[in-house]
Amino acid sequence: MEFVLKNFDGKTRVGAIKTPRGTIQTPTFMPVGTLGTVKAMSPDELKEMGAEIMLCNTHHLYLRPGHEIIHQLGGLHKFINWSGPILTDSGGFQVFSLSPLRRIFENGVEFRSHIDGSIHFISPEAAMEMQAMLGSDIAMAFDECVPYPAEYEYVAKSLCLTTKWAGRCKKWFIDHGASVVSKQALFGIIQGGMHKDLRERSLEELMKIGFDGYAVGGLSVGEPKEEMHEIIGFIGPLMPVGYPKYLMGVCDLVDVLVAVENGFDMFDCVMPTRNARNGTLFTSRGRVSIKKTEFKADPSPLDPDCDCYTCKNYSKAYLRHLFLAKEILAMRLNTIHNLYFYLNFFKKMRGAIEGKTFSQFKKRWEGILCRVSSIEY
Amino acid sequence: MEFVLKNFDGKTRVGAIKTPRGTIQTPTFMPVGTLGTVKAMSPDELKEMGAEIMLCNTHHLYLRPGHEIIHQLGGLHKFINWSGPILTDSGGFQVFSLSPLRRIFENGVEFRSHIDGSIHFISPEAAMEMQAMLGSDIAMAFDECVPYPAEYEYVAKSLCLTTKWAGRCKKWFIDHGASVVSKQALFGIIQGGMHKDLRERSLEELMKIGFDGYAVGGLSVGEPKEEMHEIIGFIGPLMPVGYPKYLMGVCDLVDVLVAVENGFDMFDCVMPTRNARNGTLFTSRGRVSIKKTEFKADPSPLDPDCDCYTCKNYSKAYLRHLFLAKEILAMRLNTIHNLYFYLNFFKKMRGAIEGKTFSQFKKRWEGILCRVSSIEY
Repeated sequence: MEFVLKNFDGKTRVGAIKTPRGTIQTPTFMPVGTLGTVKAMSPDELKEMGAEIMLCNTHHLYLRPGHEIIHQLGGLHKFINWSGPILTDSGGFQVFSLSPLRRIFENGVEFRSHIDGSIHFISPEAAMEMQAMLGSDIAMAFDECVPYPAEYEYVAKSLCLTTKWAGRCKKWFIDHGASVVSKQALFGIIQGGMHKDLRERSLEELMKIGFDGYAVGGLSVGEPKEEMHEIIGFIGPLMPVGYPKYLMGVCDLVDVLVAVENGFDMFDCVMPTRNARNGTLFTSRGRVSIKKTEFKADPSPLDPDCDCYTCKNYSKAYLRHLFLAKEILAMRLNTIHNLYFYLNFFKKMRGAIEGKTFSQFKKRWEGILCRVSSIEY
Repeated sequence: MEFVLKNFDGKTRVGAIKTPRGTIQTPTFMPVGTLGTVKAMSPDELKEMGAEIMLCNTHHLYLRPGHEIIHQLGGLHKFINWSGPILTDSGGFQVFSLSPLRRIFENGVEFRSHIDGSIHFISPEAAMEMQAMLGSDIAMAFDECVPYPAEYEYVAKSLCLTTKWAGRCKKWFIDHGASVVSKQALFGIIQGGMHKDLRERSLEELMKIGFDGYAVGGLSVGEPKEEMHEIIGFIGPLMPVGYPKYLMGVCDLVDVLVAVENGFDMFDCVMPTRNARNGTLFTSRGRVSIKKTEFKADPSPLDPDCDCYTCKNYSKAYLRHLFLAKEILAMRLNTIHNLYFYLNFFKKMRGAIEGKTFSQFKKRWEGILCRVSSIEY
């Protein structure tokens, strides 16, 4: 993997991550394909709408169908029919957010499956091995994701473990030549909760170990926006310039604007896809709840400024009808639109950065994104 | 609408129905788009896999979103983004099969909506008006669908009503110039239960009224296969040669073979789409239940002889994984395959008729279709 900076004003930047499976223009949005499919989409549709990388969840794929089976079948790309780059998370976040029971040991985490209640144990090495067997292009180190709020002492103690685990992940990665065998890159995950000194310590420790990219985890876990923005604004500029900066699980576009301003390059989250399935759609005029009675006989497209398949071919009235009838095509058309909207937003944002108009872009969109929220409810 | 016979051995035939919106090769299979969408499919996908006509349900579209709204929005084709021919049923079958309460009057049927319990009344004229407002290419007369089993006296009495209603439908159609205004064709529906004399009487009465095509209703309502085949074999050859013969709601392929042998041209049913969503898939080797453990790590396509998108790009292992994880893509890929299988079956069947090898085709497929059933369970 290679990271090239194309445009950089000291803070905000446009770049490109070059992987053996394709180049990713940054800042980038990574659609989430939890179980090896971005819900309601085919890989062809994702490619067509401009997605350059997708994210899959190691934890979910470990539980079903199992990473061994995927490995046996030729790896994740072949299994899911996606030839572009894939980033796999390590499973740390899912272990802490999904498992009904978990016990943390020095050597790893014991947890109960949220599907069938069976008991599992994952060590940092196991998390690395799974990702190598999946064959993702970017693997993530195994970390402990601290809940919000959390006592300083607890976060500090947890951070010691996360750092140790990061070191063990890197060791496994080197010992098994993962960068050669699976052509993988490995990213470290900065933890430290809402405490700036711990965040800084985490970054320093990870940089000592050395990774191909650096991610910020443990945000968007329930904290107020102000605190999140505070941490983003603090840690983003401290992170090393020559490496991709990935803000995990944060993708409210207001937050994205703050993060991009502070140098972040990579984003993921399920908001556009989940909202689509719930009938909440993003448009250039603000958010729209498609089930509203006012759209009953509305012949106009969802977003007149949008070039997606949904907006080019269907009326709000039809989208409302499909949604109320719980038709699968409702999920599909809504997801196509929301993902296209996100990917297009990122594309326009890259253009604004290159054209030195990011601050205007940010201001204009903050207005739209706020206005919109009030329209919806 | 024009019906052209291309190949005819006195009974079995290949033809073409020419409509202003496109030509339909017969025998044809019409995917069912109950609420204005073939479940899980986009219209583009349907077209790509060779569907030449789709069926929509007047009854369902009347209840939601309402035929007035669809008319106001430019008609059904525009509303659902399907430019090919559409056949709408009259709603008779749905009134009798879906409504919790219904009362039959000389003038029409009063029924309770299966969605919200509201009371509605549909006359033959109303059923025609709805279909004209939807703007379908082929409209169906409003009939009473008799349950199975039914006493001879009841069926005979019901038939009188169905014939009267057919006459009123035709009158409305002429009075309102529907063939000009909506460029519609109108088909009559032969009823008469399992009684040959009543079936014959129904046909004669409908032919006196005069329709653009003739359909057989009231089969596949619970009767034994032998009785169904008996009626198909009796009525098919009696129906007039120069008009399309449509066997409604019957689409088990074994029954289709019997019906095509007896001259039927048009078929519809939800079996391929509904089975797909339940994980039962049709293949050239028989039926497959995709959830079976034996497919856990199976790298082979569902049907090695199939050229559909699903079989060209995905393994049984992935299809099984998606199905067990209840992913929307499972519904999509399974539906693509089953519909492609059906459409391709009809295409090959037309080739066999033209090549004078229909009897071999029928024998071979009867073998496969039986063999298959035993594999599945």
